[in-house]
Amino acid sequence: MKYQPIKIIENQQQKLLTPAFNMSSSARCFGTNFLGRLKSPICSSNAEQDDHQLPKFEHFGEAVAIPRGPYSDATLECVRVDMMQNENKSDHHCHLYEGKNNILIVRRAQEFQMTLQFNQPVNPSDNFQIEFYIGIDDNVLNGTKIIISFDGSQTGNWTGRMIQQQGDACVVGITPSADAIIGKYYTSVAVIGSNGISRTQKDSGTDFYLLFNAWASNDEVYMPNEEERQEYVMNENGFIYEEESGDGRQWFYGQFVEGILDACFQILDDSHMPLVNRGDAVKVCRIGSAMMNSQDDRGVLVGNWSDDYSLGTAPTFWLGSDQILLQYVNKGPVSFAQCWVYAGTFNTFLRCLGIPARVITNFNSAHDNTGNIVTDLVFNSVGNQLELNERLTRDSIWNYHCWNEAYLSRLDLPADQNFGGWQVVDSTPQETSDGYYRCGPCSVKAIKEGMLGYQFDAPFVFAEVNSDVYKYKLNSQTGKTELLSVDTTYVGMKILTKSIGETNEPMDITETYKYPEGSSKDEETMRNAERTYKTHLQYDDEQGVAMTLEIPQERVKIGQNFQMAVVFRNLSEDTRTIHGFLVGSTIYYTNIQRAQFKQLTFDVTLKPMETSRIQVVVLAQNYMPKLGCQSNLRFVVTAKSMENNQDMTAIQIVNLKGPELAFAMSGPAKVNQEIFVKVEFTNPFPFSLHDVRMAIQGPNFISYREKLYSEISTGASITWIESCVPTRSGNTMIYAVLDCSVLGNVQGNWAVSVQA
Amino acid sequence: MKYQPIKIIENQQQKLLTPAFNMSSSARCFGTNFLGRLKSPICSSNAEQDDHQLPKFEHFGEAVAIPRGPYSDATLECVRVDMMQNENKSDHHCHLYEGKNNILIVRRAQEFQMTLQFNQPVNPSDNFQIEFYIGIDDNVLNGTKIIISFDGSQTGNWTGRMIQQQGDACVVGITPSADAIIGKYYTSVAVIGSNGISRTQKDSGTDFYLLFNAWASNDEVYMPNEEERQEYVMNENGFIYEEESGDGRQWFYGQFVEGILDACFQILDDSHMPLVNRGDAVKVCRIGSAMMNSQDDRGVLVGNWSDDYSLGTAPTFWLGSDQILLQYVNKGPVSFAQCWVYAGTFNTFLRCLGIPARVITNFNSAHDNTGNIVTDLVFNSVGNQLELNERLTRDSIWNYHCWNEAYLSRLDLPADQNFGGWQVVDSTPQETSDGYYRCGPCSVKAIKEGMLGYQFDAPFVFAEVNSDVYKYKLNSQTGKTELLSVDTTYVGMKILTKSIGETNEPMDITETYKYPEGSSKDEETMRNAERTYKTHLQYDDEQGVAMTLEIPQERVKIGQNFQMAVVFRNLSEDTRTIHGFLVGSTIYYTNIQRAQFKQLTFDVTLKPMETSRIQVVVLAQNYMPKLGCQSNLRFVVTAKSMENNQDMTAIQIVNLKGPELAFAMSGPAKVNQEIFVKVEFTNPFPFSLHDVRMAIQGPNFISYREKLYSEISTGASITWIESCVPTRSGNTMIYAVLDCSVLGNVQGNWAVSVQA
Repeated sequence: MKYQPIKIIENQQQKLLTPAFNMSSSARCFGTNFLGRLKSPICSSNAEQDDHQLPKFEHFGEAVAIPRGPYSDATLECVRVDMMQNENKSDHHCHLYEGKNNILIVRRAQEFQMTLQFNQPVNPSDNFQIEFYIGIDDNVLNGTKIIISFDGSQTGNWTGRMIQQQGDACVVGITPSADAIIGKYYTSVAVIGSNGISRTQKDSGTDFYLLFNAWASNDEVYMPNEEERQEYVMNENGFIYEEESGDGRQWFYGQFVEGILDACFQILDDSHMPLVNRGDAVKVCRIGSAMMNSQDDRGVLVGNWSDDYSLGTAPTFWLGSDQILLQYVNKGPVSFAQCWVYAGTFNTFLRCLGIPARVITNFNSAHDNTGNIVTDLVFNSVGNQLELNERLTRDSIWNYHCWNEAYLSRLDLPADQNFGGWQVVDSTPQETSDGYYRCGPCSVKAIKEGMLGYQFDAPFVFAEVNSDVYKYKLNSQTGKTELLSVDTTYVGMKILTKSIGETNEPMDITETYKYPEGSSKDEETMRNAERTYKTHLQYDDEQGVAMTLEIPQERVKIGQNFQMAVVFRNLSEDTRTIHGFLVGSTIYYTNIQRAQFKQLTFDVTLKPMETSRIQVVVLAQNYMPKLGCQSNLRFVVTAKSMENNQDMTAIQIVNLKGPELAFAMSGPAKVNQEIFVKVEFTNPFPFSLHDVRMAIQGPNFISYREKLYSEISTGASITWIESCVPTRSGNTMIYAVLDCSVLGNVQGNWAVSVQA
Repeated sequence: MKYQPIKIIENQQQKLLTPAFNMSSSARCFGTNFLGRLKSPICSSNAEQDDHQLPKFEHFGEAVAIPRGPYSDATLECVRVDMMQNENKSDHHCHLYEGKNNILIVRRAQEFQMTLQFNQPVNPSDNFQIEFYIGIDDNVLNGTKIIISFDGSQTGNWTGRMIQQQGDACVVGITPSADAIIGKYYTSVAVIGSNGISRTQKDSGTDFYLLFNAWASNDEVYMPNEEERQEYVMNENGFIYEEESGDGRQWFYGQFVEGILDACFQILDDSHMPLVNRGDAVKVCRIGSAMMNSQDDRGVLVGNWSDDYSLGTAPTFWLGSDQILLQYVNKGPVSFAQCWVYAGTFNTFLRCLGIPARVITNFNSAHDNTGNIVTDLVFNSVGNQLELNERLTRDSIWNYHCWNEAYLSRLDLPADQNFGGWQVVDSTPQETSDGYYRCGPCSVKAIKEGMLGYQFDAPFVFAEVNSDVYKYKLNSQTGKTELLSVDTTYVGMKILTKSIGETNEPMDITETYKYPEGSSKDEETMRNAERTYKTHLQYDDEQGVAMTLEIPQERVKIGQNFQMAVVFRNLSEDTRTIHGFLVGSTIYYTNIQRAQFKQLTFDVTLKPMETSRIQVVVLAQNYMPKLGCQSNLRFVVTAKSMENNQDMTAIQIVNLKGPELAFAMSGPAKVNQEIFVKVEFTNPFPFSLHDVRMAIQGPNFISYREKLYSEISTGASITWIESCVPTRSGNTMIYAVLDCSVLGNVQGNWAVSVQA
């Protein structure tokens, strides 16, 4: 017997091997090696079916492979199938979807009608059935193949009925099940003879799209109120708030624009989501929140929170979702986005597929990345002064953060908890506790009750609206910290969304997320939540002197000088001598400092119970050079009362208002009549603007156009005149935006009514 | 005023740009662009600190940057720090961790002691503190920097006390908080003078590892029972069941082997998990389940369910986790694994970090990939015969599937639900509903109660143990299906784990996952669960004839002929004429067919109430050529009673027993005395075995060795003699395994007791 000496076997190819494994898996394909694991990958592409053909004629018993003649002995043949697009589309609230080829679009759990034209009168003895297919699995058990027969038998959950049969024509009614897979189906009519079965060939004219149905009471996205359905499913125009006052930006969702519906289904294909899961609105929302951002999965939008957008389009320059989704389809991930761009585009995706959705704005949104519901602000104490420690203040509080709400009944959660209704879904890439770039769906009610154990991502959302702000003084000598104060009201102080109807008025939905501060229910919520979190530090708040910051009532324009005040109220019986320190910086909307532009120290003496104001003048010449294309100023004031060493801190953000665009029309707008629109801008600044980019767009009025001005000097005006031909009567909206490296956020929008 | 004609701006660099964004994010780094979003990436590396230095002396008020002299005015100086490794390690049950440099290893929420040696007697006026650091954030607020002072003040949740102070030496006690970050810390003693603070320099001799503590009642991994802690944290040897009978494979966890602890912390670093989350056992378990497989994140093990392991090591060839983890540290992802390899390696990871863990085996584990709790078996009806439709039978039922349980109190779930205790964590890459390759932690109790709304991945786990098997007949003429029968008991029929102590006896834990079949509690559970799922089809089961398959009582050896029987019991009052059809195939353990080796049709007539057996002879010469390195045969029998067209189906799997290895020692084993071990193998097959690979290993007895035999001809024996020197007294285990392309799963293990 031969044998060899001991020999350790090294695996040379491994280095080559593993990347291949990872590539495929990171593409979310289910592993490269199915042999012995799954017979084949689960079908995860709706588009795949386009190259898939059905045999025109199948012999019976072909499974045992005995070839016979090529023809059916049945003489009945279906010669024409009419999907009755126009009638069905308006019955199903799908008439607004634009598209050259008039493909049928319907919603599930609601009947649509078809007319079948045969080559001869249909006899009771004839045996035919309608078959619908999605993907290439052809499996009646998982809902990728549906068979509708009219002999009383039923396979699966779809139902059909014979409405009318006259000679060689039949009108039938088809009702897809309430949990049917959404996507593009194709249709075949099969006639069963005694020797085999013959089918009509695939024909794009008989394809149809199936969507979620907010009008059907047994669909998980059912929304009872018609006004709400019109707003949250049908409205193409939206408004996203950036100011608690209700100021913000118009956004064009454009879910009915030609190509957008196909883009949304392509996004599902790009996510490699198995078709069999696409009947589940919860899973579709979750996948959507992952796919809207490019991380992990080369999704739709690339985030950028810097000042440099030279490699793409500035987040402030987008007018709506349609340009973004169409660019994604043609060129892959789109640059650049910040939260309102993610939320606006995700909203289009959800409404387009039939899921009721809205964009909400949370003001002072905490960004919990240390896994508790405490946001720490740390101040260095240097001699007698405190200054914000930018390094240790790691949890950021965004001025505002936008996310989406989708309306779902949450069949995946215990029914007795009633977690149905609005659900938080957020596609802005953040440090989620779960480590991946997606968030939700998470029941708004669960957030309100502090029940954070239910999927998905409730703790992260809860922290965004409920964190307490802990202010610490860092002893730079020993490195120890000392709690200064706790602010339980600052974070999530207001949550807004657009009201229903043709208005930009905000609706305050704060109470859907939280009980009134300090109420017993609120304390109960915090108790529930703190099971999940380290309990809070104890802190008793006995202030001697109260310090607040007062900023101007109406918004300050970029380039304006303005005044603000630091106000002290001495609540004690003693005289207090205050030493104060104010720092002004420009910041990003994520509340991260960009640059300091002002430092000021001051002293004030307060008699018992006295109130005193320190006026502070802020000059444009100081903040303008540090502004970049941001429009936020942050003022941090710290003070100490020398008698009792009481430390005081206050933070206030001033959001500057950009210059405006002027708009005019050459006359009243009529359908199919040329008209001229004029957009004007004047440079109000003491310096020239360079490489100024402008865009204009108006649904059914003027298609997207863009223009670049190399320079607009001080005080100079530009006038842009465009010819348009309105294509639909009724009310629409014209959007315009202007952007350059030192000036973002200049936009305008104007409601226009078009006569028939 | 100049201006340019309209010009659309294309973004050329975008294609270049986005990959960069993806690379970084797929590496789980939190975005590439922190400017304006986060001041800096959150520290997610424990290793980073190695190049991090502390200033030896810091002047006070250096924040305002007024340089002064280089020296402290404090004369006190710490000249030596003794971490008292030996005393502390055994107090903290960490004495078994092997390693050349005797680094301190302790568990959190339990005191350890240090001795500080100063240059002079310590006076009450002296002001010093001990500082511990992990990572490079140095932030007292998020637990990455800890300050222990002895003036009564406390910063953070760690506590310290002065145990003894004599002259220039102090013995102090340090108690890390119960939620402290686990990982490698470094130590500095700081003396505070009036002009500044001076610190001892970093010294690997004063570093220490902090682990989870199953012995501490306030730690979330607390396990009350000492016997259980000895098994689930301390035991290095395990047994993984592959047969309901209790047969299976020995597995060496080796969590105390030199280098394994470092490997586990490197895995956390490779996952880019933020340090601040590493005090949370739930998150550590979840990240671990993602990192054990190479998908998504280039984790530890590459899965392979094929027959071709030529690019790596066959899953059946591993003896334990230590070789795998050490190879991962040196070469990256390791080829190849199947479920027991994932579970065994993950178990080492968990026990090594101090989390109580065990490997469990679920027999007939359903693999739900259509999002319901129904497993569909589809049979084609061809003429009078039924045959399994391999394509439509998409949900696979694995003969068995292994996963892990970790013992956690689940602070992240509502306390009133009592979801603490054993939690399912599974690192085998599967089609999880959530689309990523990880699973759990998921409360076993939640599975038993059918409460599937609680994180994480409960619906997927529930389906693995509770799916009903629906058998369908597919009408190949119309494509319609017909329900044949429902089996509610087949899936998850038994769940086993190793008993506590030095035994391989299985412990049946089925009842921890499910109430008795058919009990009222069981129905309640299914009702809870079905809120999450499409409701089941209705089916009433009235059998005329019962058909069962009988296989041999004791296991059949590979290469043996054997007999089995198809048994019919006629429960009706009429005579029945049965037409039957049997198919035998070799299958993978995932129950996917590899090749057919037997087809048999038979007819039998049964008098009223008669029972009849059809004997079936299975010949080795038929199945051996189709066996590959698998050892499973599957028999599918279908039959029809001609009188009433009743269809019957039965499926039975025969798991063949491999040949055995013989073992002998040259005498009784004594510590530090050379001894010879002999492993023998004889080829029982009528053909030669080629390129036979063998390995042997014995903890504290013989290090891992491997040998290759180019050929072992029919009937030939090989004898492998190795010299060993036992290094520790007590009981240990010798493992050996043999593997070649046509024969996997040949292994032996022998308990050995070593005298002092």
